[in-house]
Amino acid sequence: MTQSQKVHRRAAVLSIGDELTLGQTLDTNSKWVSERLMDLGIKPVEHVTVPDDLDAHIRVLLRLAHEVDVIISTGGLGPTADDLTRQAVAAASGDVLVEDVISLEEIKAIFTNRKREMPEVNRVQALRPSRARAISNPHGTAPGIHAVIGDVDVFCAPGPPGELFPMFRERISPLLRPEPGRLVRTRIIGCCGIGESEIATRLGSLMDRERNPLVGTTASGGVVTCRVRVEGMMSGLEAEGLLDEAERGIRGKLGVHAFATGHNSLARACVEELKKRKQMLGVVESCTGGMLGAAVTEVAGSSAVFVGGLQTYSNGLKEKLAGVKRETLEKFGAVSREVAREMAVGGCAALGCEWCVSVTGIAGPDGGSVEKPVGTVWIGIAGPHGVVTRRFAMSGERQPVRQWSVTAALGALWMDLHQSDVKMLREQERR
Amino acid sequence: MTQSQKVHRRAAVLSIGDELTLGQTLDTNSKWVSERLMDLGIKPVEHVTVPDDLDAHIRVLLRLAHEVDVIISTGGLGPTADDLTRQAVAAASGDVLVEDVISLEEIKAIFTNRKREMPEVNRVQALRPSRARAISNPHGTAPGIHAVIGDVDVFCAPGPPGELFPMFRERISPLLRPEPGRLVRTRIIGCCGIGESEIATRLGSLMDRERNPLVGTTASGGVVTCRVRVEGMMSGLEAEGLLDEAERGIRGKLGVHAFATGHNSLARACVEELKKRKQMLGVVESCTGGMLGAAVTEVAGSSAVFVGGLQTYSNGLKEKLAGVKRETLEKFGAVSREVAREMAVGGCAALGCEWCVSVTGIAGPDGGSVEKPVGTVWIGIAGPHGVVTRRFAMSGERQPVRQWSVTAALGALWMDLHQSDVKMLREQERR
Repeated sequence: MTQSQKVHRRAAVLSIGDELTLGQTLDTNSKWVSERLMDLGIKPVEHVTVPDDLDAHIRVLLRLAHEVDVIISTGGLGPTADDLTRQAVAAASGDVLVEDVISLEEIKAIFTNRKREMPEVNRVQALRPSRARAISNPHGTAPGIHAVIGDVDVFCAPGPPGELFPMFRERISPLLRPEPGRLVRTRIIGCCGIGESEIATRLGSLMDRERNPLVGTTASGGVVTCRVRVEGMMSGLEAEGLLDEAERGIRGKLGVHAFATGHNSLARACVEELKKRKQMLGVVESCTGGMLGAAVTEVAGSSAVFVGGLQTYSNGLKEKLAGVKRETLEKFGAVSREVAREMAVGGCAALGCEWCVSVTGIAGPDGGSVEKPVGTVWIGIAGPHGVVTRRFAMSGERQPVRQWSVTAALGALWMDLHQSDVKMLREQERR
Repeated sequence: MTQSQKVHRRAAVLSIGDELTLGQTLDTNSKWVSERLMDLGIKPVEHVTVPDDLDAHIRVLLRLAHEVDVIISTGGLGPTADDLTRQAVAAASGDVLVEDVISLEEIKAIFTNRKREMPEVNRVQALRPSRARAISNPHGTAPGIHAVIGDVDVFCAPGPPGELFPMFRERISPLLRPEPGRLVRTRIIGCCGIGESEIATRLGSLMDRERNPLVGTTASGGVVTCRVRVEGMMSGLEAEGLLDEAERGIRGKLGVHAFATGHNSLARACVEELKKRKQMLGVVESCTGGMLGAAVTEVAGSSAVFVGGLQTYSNGLKEKLAGVKRETLEKFGAVSREVAREMAVGGCAALGCEWCVSVTGIAGPDGGSVEKPVGTVWIGIAGPHGVVTRRFAMSGERQPVRQWSVTAALGALWMDLHQSDVKMLREQERR
């Protein structure tokens, strides 16, 4: 095999398959591979997906071989006529296909273990370009391929995650050559109750594009994520030191709006905070119909702080289960400050918990009016310090409005958990 | 604006963002956009993701402008320094950025509606290349851009799905020009209570790869989707005729297991069925913590049949709210046929509804035992005909087990709605 000794600084992640380009299947492999590459200190600089088309496949390999140091490809190694990775890699590296004797034995062995004869169609899976190496696959009939195009390494793995993940971890990862001493480290800081533009204003020059660490933001469904990335020739200790410093700078500017470091969700942050306080939480949901409880219980171990909830979708149940007064419903309507307040307070009583979050809103598409357009959502937070309500005006379709309502509710709970802290501290100071 | 009149046969879908290339965020937009393009008869031939890097962004636009007829890009339209789509499109089309007066007014109006002043950083979002058009965004502060590079149309939409989806459907889709006469039509048939291999066996030669329409299946979280795709130079009427014929063939083989045609969810199928019957539904959830109610209320208009639900996460609430007997909990445990039964029956009484679905299970990671491992889920369906319970043994992590439980519960409800039909029919026949 023509051996490349190029250091792997920049990688491309290539996915193959009609089902991906046509939008029938969601590509989750590229994200997974990219995370692993980042862990190794190799930077993925492009993801690309092409159909089961030999010309397109060869073209993308030749292009990427000019742009990056290493290509990781997934898919196209099956036994059928639309699996073209073997041919594409052979053509792009100016090589011919040969049958790999060991691969053929391994494929036959897989069928023997299943007490079956190898169907003749599977024989093509033992083919590899003559100067390439086969990568053994104990989990399936598709061996991987390690080839070199020009001076760029290409690692081809099968698409099914159950085969890709172990092959990448056990066989491909040890062959990668990140620059010695070069590190890429990332830290994530989740923020709520504050918009992306307000964050940008507060962070100011911290977000300059030339800085290292580099700070970027992404907004999604009411949460803004600050990503801090440091890269360069440095030790892990130095990198973490720089990230710590950047995080302190960000937290200094954002205060309680920064709810978590790492991939922790807002729900997990609230659950952890309630665990510390040994206080229980319940929810009373109308327009979200269970999504808020679902978000809280997505956190493993949430049963330590989450007692349960009421889906008071009909007005009748708002009265019967949460104890909302009929007069309140009639006078102010189900989507109102007063009903949100009674839902939260009534929820504490009905569920037996210190904290209760209520959500009542108009998710659409129908039910809006001039005074209360679709997207009007009232949130109530009842806690040991009393009850507060907040109004949100969201825009968008039914499901995003509901998703946003959940984030807004958890964000409001988070902020209240901390503002009640501030209140308690002040009260203690006064004593 | 330099107007292109090129027919849009082949499309590229471009996603922008460090968080995507670095593997921090999963790109779901490209799949969504590709599905919509296929619906229109335009074939997506490449997905590509590049980081927030101006040079890479310009390079990919120039390359794609030589390879496809239309580019749909998402992301990079935010207000911060790492949002570079505006500059990249301007550079790639040899243009300069100008401030769009109407966009600026629309952005200001969004802040006015939120009772806030527009922060100065948001002003950049009103920029567009001088020869391009801004695409109005009623759901956020990022207008889209319609530019032309060479003779290729480029449509840039914001990344958040709540803004992308309506912008694509309402503003971009009408500007696309699929080849007249050429059609790609897809029909989706949702199936529950039956596995993918059993479906393949029943459909037999209907699934041959050379057929037009082509039938494929995908299994995901308990639902198997049969996709029927017809393509060619034909009229809409001819295409629909072929799809009708294929659907009749499939439904003939699958019976009540085929719950819906189109992208209708299992939840919508149940809601529609209950509407026909004028019967009300409630839910009592333990391990799913609200996800079942959330799935039902995701269906617009579900309030006509969904009364509400109880999230009886703690055993105390199973007793207090759903009327489960303490002896039953003590004798059989919370995850048992008996408790699922009492939750469903008690739910009908507490919520005042004809149908009630209960879910109690062990989602993990903790709480499993030898007799009841993680993934053990009991589902109860109480209805006018009595109550039935079903046990499911699922495998996987917490969130997939919960998601699967919701599908299993809705699938069980769907099957029961139809089996009760059969029962009622039989009873009528006997009279």
